[in-house]
Amino acid sequence: MKENKYDNDIFFEKYSQMSRSKDGLIAAGEWETMKSLLPDFSGKRMLDLGCGYGWHCIYAMEQGAASVIGVDISHKMLEVAKKKTTFQQVKYLCSPMEDVDFPSESFDAVVSSLAFHYIADFEPIVQKIHHVLKQGGSLVFSVEHPVFTAEGSQNWCYDLEGVIKHFPMDNYYYEGKRVANFLGEDVVKYHRTLTTYLNTLLSNGFELTKIVEPQPPEHMLEIIPGMLDEMRRPMMLIVSATKK
Amino acid sequence: MKENKYDNDIFFEKYSQMSRSKDGLIAAGEWETMKSLLPDFSGKRMLDLGCGYGWHCIYAMEQGAASVIGVDISHKMLEVAKKKTTFQQVKYLCSPMEDVDFPSESFDAVVSSLAFHYIADFEPIVQKIHHVLKQGGSLVFSVEHPVFTAEGSQNWCYDLEGVIKHFPMDNYYYEGKRVANFLGEDVVKYHRTLTTYLNTLLSNGFELTKIVEPQPPEHMLEIIPGMLDEMRRPMMLIVSATKK
Repeated sequence: MKENKYDNDIFFEKYSQMSRSKDGLIAAGEWETMKSLLPDFSGKRMLDLGCGYGWHCIYAMEQGAASVIGVDISHKMLEVAKKKTTFQQVKYLCSPMEDVDFPSESFDAVVSSLAFHYIADFEPIVQKIHHVLKQGGSLVFSVEHPVFTAEGSQNWCYDLEGVIKHFPMDNYYYEGKRVANFLGEDVVKYHRTLTTYLNTLLSNGFELTKIVEPQPPEHMLEIIPGMLDEMRRPMMLIVSATKK
Repeated sequence: MKENKYDNDIFFEKYSQMSRSKDGLIAAGEWETMKSLLPDFSGKRMLDLGCGYGWHCIYAMEQGAASVIGVDISHKMLEVAKKKTTFQQVKYLCSPMEDVDFPSESFDAVVSSLAFHYIADFEPIVQKIHHVLKQGGSLVFSVEHPVFTAEGSQNWCYDLEGVIKHFPMDNYYYEGKRVANFLGEDVVKYHRTLTTYLNTLLSNGFELTKIVEPQPPEHMLEIIPGMLDEMRRPMMLIVSATKK
């Protein structure tokens, strides 16, 4: 069963109200870091796995990409993406990313933003990406950090006055399914260790070029409620790699 | 001020009673993982930074190393190392690792076991290692995992009955000094993020070849008290890299 929470009406409506949904990349705390790791898209063929609203597809086109394919499992997400996208060279494909099939070396760059933690098996996806990337091509992806997914609840620990004490680390080496509450709904995600994320790339023909745990940006620290607490735990991991 | 807790009489005596001190590598939960990442030492010149009792120096010689230099800040540790070591090709040097100075490309391999988290600044050490390694040479090191060093106390959270609830994650992005209790003594360590550990290597001429968070070995899980709990948090990080 492949996870497609975003086609759930209630969840989708709530997701649509998030600032990162309404305002796009600029409202995402990790965007500045992610952007700094992206390759030069000029004249390149880009694949976005789990493209959602298509923000990264549009960005690649704005940076001069030759063509973009955005893949997402959710019809609802792609409906919005299609409305937002004016570039004819962007094609959207409604499919679980595990099932897509492209000829060898079809892309110069593969991007995936906060999607791989919905995937039960990481290695087949890595092998697929290796297959479709040309040699020297780039993979850049973000996922929820293993620290954030390990325990399962994704909730802070609070004291009796409701003040945050710390974030709980537990179950780290027990990889697999977690059910976390996101926007008031149960969402299934998959925890895997940092070892698994990085060594799966290294053992499948990738060279790691950068690994970053994005910090909350300075200008958001004081103005966005809760953002200062994000200095206390790593919530995301961004990795860039090239096909050897 | 460079950390030299191991020359403190009381601390040293307590450390000497640990099973990893008495029984060597085989008693260290991470050894099997560390060993699998080490290069072939046959005919090689090896440098061990923070060599302690010299276990890794001796191991390298047993594997056919041509010569080994073990560096440690603690006289007491090196006294024991010298007694344990029968190989004439091993030289021990009592010095903070930050202060050693070797000609360019003097070594084929650099090893460091659980020592870099005592060092305030990581980048100068990485640059030094890059300088003394020959091209294609290996660096393999273990450190306390950023998850383990972040909060500071290195203690589990317990419920009122004294049962472990989880391990606390806090202060992750605030790098720097931590004072943890180890063997009943205050020990100064330095927390740094995974981002810092890995990108400092990547941006100073190293290629990452493997990143492993060693799990407690199967055969220790049931027989060593507390070992099963080590499945709940990553305590160490082992990295192998080569000089590009």
